[in-house]
Amino acid sequence: MPAGVTIAVDAMSGDHGAVVAVPASLSVLAGTPGLEILLVGRRAELEPLLQNAHGLDRCRIVEASEVVGMDERPQDALRRKKDSSMRVAVNLVKRGEAAACVSAGNTGALLATARFVLGMIPGIDRPAIVSAIPAAHGHTLMLDLGANPDCTSEHLLQFALMGSVLASDLHGSARPRVGLLNIGEEAIKGTAALREAHQRLAAAPVNYVGFVEGDDIFSGDVDVVVTDGFSGNVALKTMEGVARLITSIMREEFTRDALRKFGALMASPALNALKARLDPRAYNGASMVGLGGVVIKSHGGADEVAFANSVRVAMLEVQKGVPAQIARLLERASSVSGGTQPPAGQ
Amino acid sequence: MPAGVTIAVDAMSGDHGAVVAVPASLSVLAGTPGLEILLVGRRAELEPLLQNAHGLDRCRIVEASEVVGMDERPQDALRRKKDSSMRVAVNLVKRGEAAACVSAGNTGALLATARFVLGMIPGIDRPAIVSAIPAAHGHTLMLDLGANPDCTSEHLLQFALMGSVLASDLHGSARPRVGLLNIGEEAIKGTAALREAHQRLAAAPVNYVGFVEGDDIFSGDVDVVVTDGFSGNVALKTMEGVARLITSIMREEFTRDALRKFGALMASPALNALKARLDPRAYNGASMVGLGGVVIKSHGGADEVAFANSVRVAMLEVQKGVPAQIARLLERASSVSGGTQPPAGQ
Repeated sequence: MPAGVTIAVDAMSGDHGAVVAVPASLSVLAGTPGLEILLVGRRAELEPLLQNAHGLDRCRIVEASEVVGMDERPQDALRRKKDSSMRVAVNLVKRGEAAACVSAGNTGALLATARFVLGMIPGIDRPAIVSAIPAAHGHTLMLDLGANPDCTSEHLLQFALMGSVLASDLHGSARPRVGLLNIGEEAIKGTAALREAHQRLAAAPVNYVGFVEGDDIFSGDVDVVVTDGFSGNVALKTMEGVARLITSIMREEFTRDALRKFGALMASPALNALKARLDPRAYNGASMVGLGGVVIKSHGGADEVAFANSVRVAMLEVQKGVPAQIARLLERASSVSGGTQPPAGQ
Repeated sequence: MPAGVTIAVDAMSGDHGAVVAVPASLSVLAGTPGLEILLVGRRAELEPLLQNAHGLDRCRIVEASEVVGMDERPQDALRRKKDSSMRVAVNLVKRGEAAACVSAGNTGALLATARFVLGMIPGIDRPAIVSAIPAAHGHTLMLDLGANPDCTSEHLLQFALMGSVLASDLHGSARPRVGLLNIGEEAIKGTAALREAHQRLAAAPVNYVGFVEGDDIFSGDVDVVVTDGFSGNVALKTMEGVARLITSIMREEFTRDALRKFGALMASPALNALKARLDPRAYNGASMVGLGGVVIKSHGGADEVAFANSVRVAMLEVQKGVPAQIARLLERASSVSGGTQPPAGQ
């Protein structure tokens, strides 16, 4: 970690607020010598959680008097809560006092706030939510996961460019394979926007491998899956639901009687390894890409381990300079036939 | 099974063709005294598979000289392959010589053929693909799984009515809870069609519980999930992909070394129970609802066990008289404010 990197943590939002955000931040601080964290929120609530902590010399409270509710309408949060922990954290990024911010708050409010305060990278129309998803070869990046339910081919193309930058910069794929999510039936292959995006992607400066289906997210055949936010969110939630169902059936079957419990004990090394590899906490920290700054969304229900991971995602994006890398690829793309067309005035 | 029920089996389609379809049909015949099966396909290929089989008195070959390819365009199959095993099987339903047909063939071709030959139930605009999905409370029915990528609120309403009939008639839910698939963010809650469908469903003669998300498919909080065919197919394939990934990680972790293998042995009663409960073969047999007859689509790659299940799904729908039940509910719905509006001329 280069010296002097500062991350703003919205320490009040999410289902658990400061009780998770503060210890998670402290644990990342302890393991990362070059890091400084600004804990944004009500001093009276945050200070008691900092008693006797290590690394306090690199941790500072920035006062914010309000908190955005998890069910609050994004526009209300944006207009009325100008001193919320979320807003103040994003403002710190805007003013250059922090290189990134992390929040477990209301996704819609965070998106609206970040977009309003930080603006977009020139050539990107809308922010997209992107996250790593466990897959056979390690993981796949998928975007958009819910910011944009309706997308044009231009949006999908922009998502592909951004996903490709993230996969190569953050995850070290040399020529990340980019797929466009579609459904299988030949006769009804996708919408007009998808078919158009398919053609434009083939001409774009990404390693486009064509249409993929829902099961390819996990197959290892692709590094980036591009989709609109509706399908992306459905896939993400479906994935969580299946994993939870399988976990609960396993628990049921492994505790049915004494013999089964003994079996679970004997199988515990394998079962624990399985659990660790599928632990959703390891994948916490979705990036809101396309913004003029690094904004990471933690799951609202994140625990300390999960929240700490989202802070690490923020650190990594800062180190790799993701927004600048995206801007650079966009310049290349706009000079290529079939590339993006940055709207006038941006 | 009432005496004299006849099911037409397209015995040539699917990845494995007659080698799977014939023994699967014979095994269902053996266990179902009242059943008759018409095996549709090339006599020369089917006859050798019937040597020495039991139940041959209730099994007859119906000659069809052609086979629709798995990648053939539906319109081509419909126009040019009038003597395909698929087409002849559907024709048998049309002529009343079979009460239902089952095919593991090309989904698009089967949909197009069934719609052309059998027509739609009055008041239903489009056939939908519906299947049972494993869930915490047993299973959830989901539709559409891929027949209609774009849907209006009217289509979604019709899917809800059909799903409700299937859940109560086939699966014994007294007042099946129907949910409409959406994504979570308040500010961007779905498309215009979804919001409109949400309002119309509240006034329809179904037990509508509101919007649900991808994870609710598995949670047990809902019996029927209604969605457009794009999202439905993405969810279905995602589910298959996650299950396959978890299975492959389990296999890897349980075979890593001798100790792990021993653990797997000790845990095998629980692992086998888990496997059985999640066996996708038990869920094989998607129904194409809304058609003027019972048409069941088996997975193309189905093995004997899976294909046999799809024949059982066909039997069950015949016993319950699904198309007639749907027509009856539609009559009720059209007399209710907010119900369906059968297009003139149907």
